[in-house]
Amino acid sequence: MAAQLPAKLKPAARVAGQRQDVWSVVNEAAAASPVQPIVNMGQGFFGYNPPGFIIDAAKSALDRVDCNQYSPTKGRPRLKKAISEAYAQHWGRKLDPDTEITITTGANEGMLSAFMAYISNIEMPGGTIVYVPLSPPKDGASRTSSSAEWAVDFDQLEKAINPKTKMIVINTPHNPVGKVFSKDELQHIGDICVKNEIIILSDEVYDRLYYVPFTRIATLSPEIENLTLTVGSAGKNFYATGWRVGWLMGPPHLIQYVSAAHTRICYSSVSPLQEACAVGFEQAESQGFWEESVRDMKGKITRFNAIWDELGLPYTDPEGGYFVMVNMAKVKLPADYPFPPHVASRPRDFKLAWFLIHEVGVAAIPPTEFYTDSNAWIAEDYMRFAVCKEDEVLETAKERLRGLKKYIEA
Amino acid sequence: MAAQLPAKLKPAARVAGQRQDVWSVVNEAAAASPVQPIVNMGQGFFGYNPPGFIIDAAKSALDRVDCNQYSPTKGRPRLKKAISEAYAQHWGRKLDPDTEITITTGANEGMLSAFMAYISNIEMPGGTIVYVPLSPPKDGASRTSSSAEWAVDFDQLEKAINPKTKMIVINTPHNPVGKVFSKDELQHIGDICVKNEIIILSDEVYDRLYYVPFTRIATLSPEIENLTLTVGSAGKNFYATGWRVGWLMGPPHLIQYVSAAHTRICYSSVSPLQEACAVGFEQAESQGFWEESVRDMKGKITRFNAIWDELGLPYTDPEGGYFVMVNMAKVKLPADYPFPPHVASRPRDFKLAWFLIHEVGVAAIPPTEFYTDSNAWIAEDYMRFAVCKEDEVLETAKERLRGLKKYIEA
Repeated sequence: MAAQLPAKLKPAARVAGQRQDVWSVVNEAAAASPVQPIVNMGQGFFGYNPPGFIIDAAKSALDRVDCNQYSPTKGRPRLKKAISEAYAQHWGRKLDPDTEITITTGANEGMLSAFMAYISNIEMPGGTIVYVPLSPPKDGASRTSSSAEWAVDFDQLEKAINPKTKMIVINTPHNPVGKVFSKDELQHIGDICVKNEIIILSDEVYDRLYYVPFTRIATLSPEIENLTLTVGSAGKNFYATGWRVGWLMGPPHLIQYVSAAHTRICYSSVSPLQEACAVGFEQAESQGFWEESVRDMKGKITRFNAIWDELGLPYTDPEGGYFVMVNMAKVKLPADYPFPPHVASRPRDFKLAWFLIHEVGVAAIPPTEFYTDSNAWIAEDYMRFAVCKEDEVLETAKERLRGLKKYIEA
Repeated sequence: MAAQLPAKLKPAARVAGQRQDVWSVVNEAAAASPVQPIVNMGQGFFGYNPPGFIIDAAKSALDRVDCNQYSPTKGRPRLKKAISEAYAQHWGRKLDPDTEITITTGANEGMLSAFMAYISNIEMPGGTIVYVPLSPPKDGASRTSSSAEWAVDFDQLEKAINPKTKMIVINTPHNPVGKVFSKDELQHIGDICVKNEIIILSDEVYDRLYYVPFTRIATLSPEIENLTLTVGSAGKNFYATGWRVGWLMGPPHLIQYVSAAHTRICYSSVSPLQEACAVGFEQAESQGFWEESVRDMKGKITRFNAIWDELGLPYTDPEGGYFVMVNMAKVKLPADYPFPPHVASRPRDFKLAWFLIHEVGVAAIPPTEFYTDSNAWIAEDYMRFAVCKEDEVLETAKERLRGLKKYIEA
């Protein structure tokens, strides 16, 4: 078979010549490591199952004809009603399930639907994007601190806005930093958006995992809610990242166009698992699942971080979510270490990731992947660890990480 | 709450001001009909469950940690291997599961991924699109005929191509016509595409339901395969339209960019149901499911079409799939019938659909929705009926359709 494509048929710029993504770099490094099997604390998938009552609900749904066929493109009525009720206490009112909630194929496709609905010239990866980074405390290399100390420079944020700015994307609780934006910070962002007429896309997929008070920007004022789309995720709420059920919530004049875009992208989302998520929301409170979630995850964070105190490596104590950012400025990489070219050419955190995988057999994620090239210096001494793994996996990781001791400067 | 959005934030043209789609028109008409409940033969969802061995596989997958978490963005290895093996006998060789198959969130998102990968300026609904219609036999109003008699005008097809043409989309077995394109027709299309360097996106989602010999255009020659992406669907193969598992198959130099676009759109597709579909493909042959599928559906087509012979209404006998197109030129709509404005303004088939729902309580789909406005005249006397429903539903539909007799011209 001819292996060549005519020059005329080259792929679109949006998919051609992409740099190898962080997941491929880390997974391929893990496969090539002399230490096997690798303890994978990289990607934020769960090392355990969703709770039994939700699995049971999914199995029951699989026995029902209507749950195996197309759902309405905007989502199953039972799930939208359950979401409306589950969010009511946090929102201060019940969202209208018909006009203020739309179900998507994971939060990822939900956010793409929002972009498609409101940004005329969007291309993948996306139109004109300006990034305003979160910066750690200046002494983050010398002391452990709270994720609250990572901050947005509001002057920089205001300068990034021009009259054509259509949308701002924020994320709280934040991945990878673990920051839960304070009410004051959100009010500041909200005021800027109201003044400049900017839609707020608030990615709140870790909205059941917070260890300090959590504010939803949509609840700050009617003027801010009027401009806000809030993103939620069953994958994160119910430990089921492979189920691909997400939702967007917001005022009808925003949601209707998100739904229209979703119809064009995926038509509808997976039916039996939507039904199971409905049961999840209906029963989570009475099953004590939300409290159990927070207690379990907070316990895992505490359990795991003991290793950094032991090694004397400062870390960022997360206010929410399940990621820990560890500052590895003190880890001395051997000068002649044979990094492969595709790692050697990336910032220091990619080298740290490769080194950890090959020397101690623990995989973590280099966070500069989440920053632009010009902002990469901000995060290049950090590594992101996902703690949503079984306790015995965390203990194995800690035991292996003790092998770093000889590379750490006193 | 302010119900207005600043003028600056109007939605993108791709989602604003869309005409009400056919599914909403039909569903709302059904809800408003004096005959309740409606017999719904409109949308092509199944009125019965996937086979037990696949449901069981889905339930087993829900008990496994890895099946509830993210799948690789290109799909689960077991499913890609199962697809490679299941298609081998039809393809004449085994596709490489790593480079020639990618899993998508339903065929819908798979096709969008293909567009996104290769059409630079694609917008939703989509760049510059030229439609070349299928036309029924000229005497379709006076005699029942095979769907084979619906034809593409190849001169018109060649005239629709210009040097910038990147992709052609074909569909076989065809929805709504039921046509299975002949080997000669596909060779003709393939030759045109090789000559003009055009990618072929072949939507073959009904590829297990054909009642005449079925040819895959990718198998006609290495030159044609080199340019062809083939679309498949678990929803259609396994009676599970709500599972949202699809796949694209083709040469690595095409598939790799489809995968890249899919990663941007949905990140990955639903894990436990991918696993269940893998078992579906592994066991379908030994369970006799493929033969049973064809036998059952052919039986439903024969059972249902008896009503048209009885009423003297000509129809198109499908060569594949599960849709029947019935010519209703002989059905006389009362001159003063009170159609609502959004129906009165559409072609005759929308009026027929409304009339059937309100007078006899059977919902079917007006096929001009699948045609451009300028081509709508071709199909405006037809109605599309989905026969993938339980036999008792088909019998109820037939009994109700006898009520049409008084409106049929002798």
